[in-house]
Amino acid sequence: MVVPALIQRKRDGGALAADEWRSLIDDYVAGRIPDYQISALLMAVVWRGLSNGELGALTDAMVASGDRLHSNGLGRPVVDKHSTGGVGDKVSLLLAPMVASCGVAVPMMSGRGLGHTGGTLDKLESIPGFRTALSLRETEAQLTRLGCAMIGQTPEIAPADRKLYALRDVTATVESIPLISASIMSKKLAEGLDGLVLDVKTGSGAFLPDRALALELARTMITLGETRGCRTVALLTAMDRPLGRACGNALEVEEALQGLAGEGPEDLMEVTYALGVEMLLLAGVERERAAARRALEATVSSGRALETLGKIIEAQGGDPTVIEDPGILPQAAAVEVFRAPAGGVVTAVDPRTIGAAIIELGGGRQTMSDTIDPGVGFVITVKPGDRVAARQPLASVFARNDAGIALGLDALHRAIVIGGEAESLPLISHRVTATGLEPL
Amino acid sequence: MVVPALIQRKRDGGALAADEWRSLIDDYVAGRIPDYQISALLMAVVWRGLSNGELGALTDAMVASGDRLHSNGLGRPVVDKHSTGGVGDKVSLLLAPMVASCGVAVPMMSGRGLGHTGGTLDKLESIPGFRTALSLRETEAQLTRLGCAMIGQTPEIAPADRKLYALRDVTATVESIPLISASIMSKKLAEGLDGLVLDVKTGSGAFLPDRALALELARTMITLGETRGCRTVALLTAMDRPLGRACGNALEVEEALQGLAGEGPEDLMEVTYALGVEMLLLAGVERERAAARRALEATVSSGRALETLGKIIEAQGGDPTVIEDPGILPQAAAVEVFRAPAGGVVTAVDPRTIGAAIIELGGGRQTMSDTIDPGVGFVITVKPGDRVAARQPLASVFARNDAGIALGLDALHRAIVIGGEAESLPLISHRVTATGLEPL
Repeated sequence: MVVPALIQRKRDGGALAADEWRSLIDDYVAGRIPDYQISALLMAVVWRGLSNGELGALTDAMVASGDRLHSNGLGRPVVDKHSTGGVGDKVSLLLAPMVASCGVAVPMMSGRGLGHTGGTLDKLESIPGFRTALSLRETEAQLTRLGCAMIGQTPEIAPADRKLYALRDVTATVESIPLISASIMSKKLAEGLDGLVLDVKTGSGAFLPDRALALELARTMITLGETRGCRTVALLTAMDRPLGRACGNALEVEEALQGLAGEGPEDLMEVTYALGVEMLLLAGVERERAAARRALEATVSSGRALETLGKIIEAQGGDPTVIEDPGILPQAAAVEVFRAPAGGVVTAVDPRTIGAAIIELGGGRQTMSDTIDPGVGFVITVKPGDRVAARQPLASVFARNDAGIALGLDALHRAIVIGGEAESLPLISHRVTATGLEPL
Repeated sequence: MVVPALIQRKRDGGALAADEWRSLIDDYVAGRIPDYQISALLMAVVWRGLSNGELGALTDAMVASGDRLHSNGLGRPVVDKHSTGGVGDKVSLLLAPMVASCGVAVPMMSGRGLGHTGGTLDKLESIPGFRTALSLRETEAQLTRLGCAMIGQTPEIAPADRKLYALRDVTATVESIPLISASIMSKKLAEGLDGLVLDVKTGSGAFLPDRALALELARTMITLGETRGCRTVALLTAMDRPLGRACGNALEVEEALQGLAGEGPEDLMEVTYALGVEMLLLAGVERERAAARRALEATVSSGRALETLGKIIEAQGGDPTVIEDPGILPQAAAVEVFRAPAGGVVTAVDPRTIGAAIIELGGGRQTMSDTIDPGVGFVITVKPGDRVAARQPLASVFARNDAGIALGLDALHRAIVIGGEAESLPLISHRVTATGLEPL
């Protein structure tokens, strides 16, 4: 195989054959192709895109580069969720135990925060002792026993994706719908899923704020999943404001525990239920939306979901007493209330400003090697459209010290806009399937 | 400097500032930026192109990465020629001594053959003992003494170009007019030239067969030269058939010697004189085209140009008796005449077929590390438009053995088309300057 000729063909807008993608990925993972050829190829892909056939072949090759989760013997349908990422998005922490409590196996494989968005792994690791680095075999054993594991990308799963992602990150080749799709779907397909629900965020705080691009990403991943035996459905959800009230790792775990105790913020619970309904339908354990919703609500009202989460935490080395006593989570040394500088209607709560401030407070990463202070963040109790009075408390800042408090108050001043008329996206706007787009 | 942010800006169609190009090149040459980031950037440049400002900054940075030829003290104007490459193009071997004999310093820095086109260095090295690897200081000394040196790119000149070209060669990022222009002009500008004449080939055998692209390349290099104090003019010349009769290293040296002795093929001499006239005008040693032409013709009729070539060969370690006795050049073991398979008009002599056959005969390179058999090649005595009789000798094959003869005859069968009407490009179609394009 002559690599420059393959790069050239892609550069000139042609397509590579399935066996060419397979050889490229195999040889790259084996160290037989240097990074500098692959980075040029990746930039040519950003430029020219990939045909459906090429995208499938690339994804298959990435899956084949590693091991898979053996889920056949579980005796339960296997379904997962993926979110394109947002601020305050702690849905996975609620959804995984809820759906697992309905008899579905949920191998919730998540990522870390990077950029302004948070990551489920970082949130979980704010629970003292919690270990996300399970091996595939440990994950399989826990799935058999508890129906759920909440893990990071194991080294055995899609090593080609790890190597490619690390290269894309330093060569400005991240922003490509086919490359994003291949990266996400290679990991999900390696989980041996029966079904996958995508939470595709839209709005200013989303990774792809442009609705048309978010929709194209959803459709690309749906086609990829469906043609590879994994039923795939997406919901387009709002990320023009944070989801729920808490933003910051330990604060979000606490809010998730409240949610599983029946006291979660409405928007968080609605998104969680909507995604959960899709998961139960894909799993085939429910056939009807209203029944699926009731089943999920019952896992909360009965306390089963919270109990399941406790078992998962214990199985993964975490302190399960957190379920009863969130006070064992890391706490911020300094807390301060932010009050409305004037009366009026809240027109915006900008998620990027909040996400960036969490990083500045030490609760997120500038680079992958940064460590995180899990206690810092915000609890914001207003949403766009709320009418507020001057001096009304709107939010709290959680920080390490006074400097952090000042920084956090300043961020809230910028993020929370009080003005005339509020315009915000519908919380859940569309459902996207292989057959089309339905408004919700 | 955050390299991914610079790659991203170029990827998205933006421009990098002059100091950013300078830092990129400096840090790359110093090994502080890895190949994989530069190859992604190069692919983004192939995609998005470069503004005039960026191209100038990149070229300046490439020049600044190395040493320059100090030509101020020569007391003569310094002018060079560059050809975009062709088959049978031995113009430099005649032009350098002719122009040097008119009182112009000519630091003829040339390349090796790669692809179907030949290289001046390979041709010169077929002269026993000839050494093209002079240092810059040796080159300066020889220019002072003889007014001419015929050399390869020294390690001191534009090391950034060497490193970038090696990377482009293996990452399918060669085919970019700004990158080609920066590569050529960085080396030429480092020669400290007062003027540069470009021989831009057009037609099927040219590196850029498309006339519009060839013209864009000419204009890009002219702008680059003129804005950097080097007067630059281009001629568009025909490469839809080989130039002259001889194709192959030693055979071309022999033809060049014939040309300097007043017995060269007409097309070769016309192109050489036309380029020489531009060089003398740029140098300011002549003010009028007809006078310049007469001055050049006088260097041939008087024998001065041939004598100068002899001195150059001697100065660079070659055997100067080649001037009197071309028989000391490497000779092919087997020679065979190719006869017209039918009578008619020659409609094509395809240069790519001839160039590829020279490589197969061992007279060119597949990769840069291949060694060359200087004796092999072709002498083709017909041109498109010539009327020929069946069985008339049209060409000779020079090869190592019978297998080579068979291969060469087969190539001639494919390259020389005898049919109805011939259509060929004018030998010299246009003159391109900073102010525009003139038909010639």
